[in-house]
Amino acid sequence: MPEFLKLTPPEEALHILLSNLQIRKPETEILDTRLSLGRVTGEDIVAGHPLPEFPRSTVDGYAVRAQDTYGSSESMPGYLTLVGEILMGTSASVKIALGTCALIHTGGMLPGGADSVVMLEDTQTVQSRKMQNYKVNEIEITHAVAAGENILQVGEDVMTGNVVIKCGSMIRPAEVGGCMALGIVQLRVAIKPKVGIISTGDEIIDPEEQTSAGQVRDINSFTLAALIESAGGEPVLYGILKDDLDLLTSVARKAINECDAVVITAGSSASSRDTTVDAIRRLGKPEVLVHGINIRPGKPTILSVCKGKAVIGLPGNPVSALVVASVILVPLIKSYLGLTSIRVQSTVLAKLMINIASQAGREDWIAVKLIPNSKKLPSDIQKKSEEEFSCFAEPIFGKSNLIFSLVAADGLIRIPMERTGISAGEIVEVIPM
Amino acid sequence: MPEFLKLTPPEEALHILLSNLQIRKPETEILDTRLSLGRVTGEDIVAGHPLPEFPRSTVDGYAVRAQDTYGSSESMPGYLTLVGEILMGTSASVKIALGTCALIHTGGMLPGGADSVVMLEDTQTVQSRKMQNYKVNEIEITHAVAAGENILQVGEDVMTGNVVIKCGSMIRPAEVGGCMALGIVQLRVAIKPKVGIISTGDEIIDPEEQTSAGQVRDINSFTLAALIESAGGEPVLYGILKDDLDLLTSVARKAINECDAVVITAGSSASSRDTTVDAIRRLGKPEVLVHGINIRPGKPTILSVCKGKAVIGLPGNPVSALVVASVILVPLIKSYLGLTSIRVQSTVLAKLMINIASQAGREDWIAVKLIPNSKKLPSDIQKKSEEEFSCFAEPIFGKSNLIFSLVAADGLIRIPMERTGISAGEIVEVIPM
Repeated sequence: MPEFLKLTPPEEALHILLSNLQIRKPETEILDTRLSLGRVTGEDIVAGHPLPEFPRSTVDGYAVRAQDTYGSSESMPGYLTLVGEILMGTSASVKIALGTCALIHTGGMLPGGADSVVMLEDTQTVQSRKMQNYKVNEIEITHAVAAGENILQVGEDVMTGNVVIKCGSMIRPAEVGGCMALGIVQLRVAIKPKVGIISTGDEIIDPEEQTSAGQVRDINSFTLAALIESAGGEPVLYGILKDDLDLLTSVARKAINECDAVVITAGSSASSRDTTVDAIRRLGKPEVLVHGINIRPGKPTILSVCKGKAVIGLPGNPVSALVVASVILVPLIKSYLGLTSIRVQSTVLAKLMINIASQAGREDWIAVKLIPNSKKLPSDIQKKSEEEFSCFAEPIFGKSNLIFSLVAADGLIRIPMERTGISAGEIVEVIPM
Repeated sequence: MPEFLKLTPPEEALHILLSNLQIRKPETEILDTRLSLGRVTGEDIVAGHPLPEFPRSTVDGYAVRAQDTYGSSESMPGYLTLVGEILMGTSASVKIALGTCALIHTGGMLPGGADSVVMLEDTQTVQSRKMQNYKVNEIEITHAVAAGENILQVGEDVMTGNVVIKCGSMIRPAEVGGCMALGIVQLRVAIKPKVGIISTGDEIIDPEEQTSAGQVRDINSFTLAALIESAGGEPVLYGILKDDLDLLTSVARKAINECDAVVITAGSSASSRDTTVDAIRRLGKPEVLVHGINIRPGKPTILSVCKGKAVIGLPGNPVSALVVASVILVPLIKSYLGLTSIRVQSTVLAKLMINIASQAGREDWIAVKLIPNSKKLPSDIQKKSEEEFSCFAEPIFGKSNLIFSLVAADGLIRIPMERTGISAGEIVEVIPM
């Protein structure tokens, strides 16, 4: 009794889902920039003024006209008359005329007439002398500067009208800082997509309850909620349902109306999985798009679009559910968010400790533990060029029912469809969990 | 006028700071497990019962006594009398005696007497027949099973008393799920360490305000707050102070009393940096431990411990402040949290597009943009073995005053102290920002 007639490769499955969804520009909301970390911009952010707004010194020294320093050297210093000090945070009251200079600090505003700054290290204060009843300081210049030297020009960071952060960018600490520099204290960001979670199965109970024989506590509602949250979505829990087609259909219909996407985790039995399919078929066109993905764990996954909303049927086994959600649901949430900035998956390179077999034509995801290179390890593996990698990867072979096999894992490795396995000693890319 | 007599290497600087702090076990609080994502466990989490709690079938099929199937094959099937069905979520009402079997679903509880499950695919339902007035179904078995086959044993995931999550572990989706499976709906977690942020400089104004000539808006309070938040700490902002030794000392004293660590970002001028050092000297022993780190950007960093609290003086330039905070402050926060689980830095491997020079004896951090391999690129670089990496890394050479050079960056590369540069074409590890 073949349960799935045709298994779809994971990437193709995701593509089919996304291309049937026609996701438009996300709804947006206005948020205090200081609270926007991890959110995604909902419009281009444009500079209202240049940065810096005024020419600034990048060193402590003397603001000068560069031509006054030409030829100055240790052996043949030049001399300039000190006409004042530029106080931080103020515009200069002095103007630099021929043969004069002013003390300036890093970040200070270049005074009128000056076009460069001589570093303090390249100067000496000359004994002050009286000249026509005024006390005058002279500064000895031992190093010439070119026009523009040790200066940040107006607009050197950004110019007025520049798109400084594109629509669809993730807000990181740097983006928060950039906005603050421009006085942009509120941001338009994408509203977090709501993802409804329905857990089904006659054997599933609420974690607050005591189990009777044959019962297990709900895991998937909570692992999925946590994953959705960390991917930038807003999980909405619809509770645990018994395997009842009418009940599931009505709750799923409610979830579709209230959310942007719905995830149904089937109970582990075949009848529970059948109920999920039947409910999805009732929810609306174009209904089931993919039934069965060529991935392990996670084969009995259902991807569908009902009334324009993604409805995903995930396997009941907690490891399968979490792996498939990482591969399908996380990219879906990023699409809803309109996230367009490049996010290359960062990984840890590690040397595989034992052989892993894999079936050609199927993508396998294996949980691994990372063991730092310093620890003592079975002899011969450690001998080979240790410089290239900092870790060993030890596969955790657990049945997909065992949630603690994932708790023990530091990350996952992906064995592509075309491979029939990975040999001990090969360098693998571990995707952190 | 050498500002720093001795520059300390970054790793050594961090070590000096941590070893002078004598960080004890963190204070803890009780939290709903469902809200604990990203937090760190404050005690060992112990299983109160085994998982699974009962022997479970991993397939849909028939619960049997393995010995009854010995010798069964396609050509010579065995026959067992069907005595019932195990409903999901219930304990079996039937007992499997010699020569009998019961229908069981994936995840179902193994009935008494049975020791294994024959997969549905390896069976046939035989026409029911009447026997002494009862209707009896017989099941044809075409594949023998061994005792324990297709079964999850009690405690196969975890046993009663097992430490399932160690103290000092980060809570990820898997940990949330594992706790829920065990009915652990509340967790003891480390209280987020409070990090006070003081921004100083006569030129710095609140981002809500309009700038006058010579003024710039505060960036560092907000980039640091965002970084502290994402590292698991709780930022506490103490506002922007003018360069006034008494004022800074009194605010820093308040911050030390209220927080676990304090960060002071100096204004960009030398006098502002001097004020920071002088204030730290007044706050209490052993005061300044490191003055000047051999890192670029970020050289004028001050690490100190005052009255048992870390006080870090960061450069005023926003890029320097953010880089040094990543290298020093983030590990400090993780120490305060008691985070002991292995967290190997995940990176993106990329091919460097142009040469970068670096001074031997100094650690350089360079912001880079990642360019996916698919994009068209200047000829000869692209020709070399493209399989090994998915990206090119293009350095962004910005002065450390330019916050938008970090906004444009996807990550940072670290040039170790012993290197004098990296050549175009070399593979570099990009640390995502």
